[in-house]
Amino acid sequence: MSRFTVELLVTPRPGLLDPQGKAIHHALSSLGYDAVDEVRVGKAIYLEVTAATPEAARERVEEMCRKLLANPVTEDFRVTASQNGGAAG
Amino acid sequence: MSRFTVELLVTPRPGLLDPQGKAIHHALSSLGYDAVDEVRVGKAIYLEVTAATPEAARERVEEMCRKLLANPVTEDFRVTASQNGGAAG
Repeated sequence: MSRFTVELLVTPRPGLLDPQGKAIHHALSSLGYDAVDEVRVGKAIYLEVTAATPEAARERVEEMCRKLLANPVTEDFRVTASQNGGAAG
Repeated sequence: MSRFTVELLVTPRPGLLDPQGKAIHHALSSLGYDAVDEVRVGKAIYLEVTAATPEAARERVEEMCRKLLANPVTEDFRVTASQNGGAAG
């Protein structure tokens, strides 16, 4: 079994209201950043997972997403696993 | 000028307290996910930026990070720009 760092990006689905993104867009405009057309804000979650393969780690985290970490009605998610330093036993 | 989608990942610095990550870790343990050793939670921000080159878009967003989007004392950030569909004029 090895240890993997799994990166999970959870983003609001296109077309859905994103008040946090709107607020940031507004703040950037006030600072003079006019080249920004749209801002959307999601979560970046990093998990240290012990698993046999990166695929196993990824599948495990996708399961956690469906159960807890993302709302499939309003959010999309993307999972990437990368191997860590040492083996975990 | 073209339109670029810039992905900005803002994460709490290693070693700093991350209560949100701790809460998620605890919730995952309660659900029986024991293979997770650590969880850290940050922000994934997607910006649509009009610029001459992807490098210009990236630099522009790094500037926004230092001014507004990230707290350099407690957070690290990573910026990636990728070209969008059509030209923006």
